Amino acid sequence: VWRPEPGFLASLPNLKLILSLGAGVDHLLGDPQLPRHLPIVRLVDPHMTDAMSEYVVLQVLRLHRRDLDYRAQQEAGVWRELDQKNAVERRVGILGLGELGQDAAKKLKALGFDVAGWRRSEKTVTGLRCHAGAAGLPLLLGRSEILVCLLPLTAETEGILNSSTLALLPRGAALVNAARGAHLVEEHLLAALASGQISAAVLDVFREEPLPADHPFWHHPCIVLTPHVAAFTNPVTAAPIILDNIRRFEEGRPLLNRVDPARGY
Amino acid sequence: VWRPEPGFLASLPNLKLILSLGAGVDHLLGDPQLPRHLPIVRLVDPHMTDAMSEYVVLQVLRLHRRDLDYRAQQEAGVWRELDQKNAVERRVGILGLGELGQDAAKKLKALGFDVAGWRRSEKTVTGLRCHAGAAGLPLLLGRSEILVCLLPLTAETEGILNSSTLALLPRGAALVNAARGAHLVEEHLLAALASGQISAAVLDVFREEPLPADHPFWHHPCIVLTPHVAAFTNPVTAAPIILDNIRRFEEGRPLLNRVDPARGY
Repeated sequence: VWRPEPGFLASLPNLKLILSLGAGVDHLLGDPQLPRHLPIVRLVDPHMTDAMSEYVVLQVLRLHRRDLDYRAQQEAGVWRELDQKNAVERRVGILGLGELGQDAAKKLKALGFDVAGWRRSEKTVTGLRCHAGAAGLPLLLGRSEILVCLLPLTAETEGILNSSTLALLPRGAALVNAARGAHLVEEHLLAALASGQISAAVLDVFREEPLPADHPFWHHPCIVLTPHVAAFTNPVTAAPIILDNIRRFEEGRPLLNRVDPARGY
Repeated sequence: VWRPEPGFLASLPNLKLILSLGAGVDHLLGDPQLPRHLPIVRLVDPHMTDAMSEYVVLQVLRLHRRDLDYRAQQEAGVWRELDQKNAVERRVGILGLGELGQDAAKKLKALGFDVAGWRRSEKTVTGLRCHAGAAGLPLLLGRSEILVCLLPLTAETEGILNSSTLALLPRGAALVNAARGAHLVEEHLLAALASGQISAAVLDVFREEPLPADHPFWHHPCIVLTPHVAAFTNPVTAAPIILDNIRRFEEGRPLLNRVDPARGY
């Protein structure tokens, strides 16, 4: 399922297993009638992970290489070299170190970026500087010239990108949100862009999707937006993964990528 | 030196060694009075190579992920998902497999792209499908949905991006030129964009730089241009490399990255 109507799953008397067609399950856990006693699994598909990393690497490179400035110069017919450092001198922070965050971190590091990550729980990731928990968040934010959000959406992470956290970034930092729109307090981003605390943002997800026609993000000169396309579910690669979990369920073997409803992902 | 006035080097009676401040030496070899009997070396700096690969990876990802289409949609306030394949399904061709081409190929492959390369002479590059010489060029072009030019500018490569070669690309292919403006016959690109043979181009270099104010590239909707900034010479990292070659010269040891004026690079 993907975004079933609230109450729909509860209406199915013989339901035994719930398989999400996406990596996130916030679309399921938001249903107050969700049959939480049933097993729920998320989709973890290397093809989607690769697509997400393509998106993240593209957007981090865009921000690193001052693409919005050069775009404005092209529009104005201006030929001017701008200061540029190399990736090795650019500190990138990744919120969320699950499958998506770890893969993006690895690929950004391969391009030379100085990458660190943050996750809810203490757990080391080979070759990556990691911060964890509430105490670790300011440490990650304080170093991140480019911040990438790849968190699951849970009660703990909703609104995590807000005026307080954005203020902890180095002045002029840039933001990429490819997770969920509800991670970001949208008015706080607009204020941070207006003050110069944030220089640019690339957003693939929004509180309301499709983004309303009158939303100020559409025509903001410092915002690049895409219509929730960072990583599609790809039927050809997803079907065998879903089938594997159905077989595991039927044969009584452990399910892969089972969701803990209490944790939220 | 970088772009000395023609005749200037010939006016220096005690000149012993010519060191280019850039990776290319076309700016030297175009001088008819160049003292060709003197050793000439190019600058090969890993910091510049990394910068060039950042640029190439950014632009290939941009074209791969339909960034120009999404940009037009944002400008028009349109929310629409577009078809997208993964990097593994996208064929990229690289013209030129020197330091720059090989590094870009390696980094594109790390993101999953299906990369092949072309060079003047038969020489294998580990892990890369290579075509060589005049006979190999159509093979490379025929497979390249995204073509990246990183060639040295020589008598053989001037104008290599022209109506005949562009016509050998798959219909709707895209082009990145980060080498020299004279590789491209600019009017031929405009015609190929008009016919739809080429869907988009990213250009860092031009026949005349700065690009003249009335040049049609400035405001073409299918062209992204940058002002020759793909890879700057970086004094901090370049100086020791240049110094090393000066010491080698003084001590009679072999020079690194010596140019063959007959070959042109």
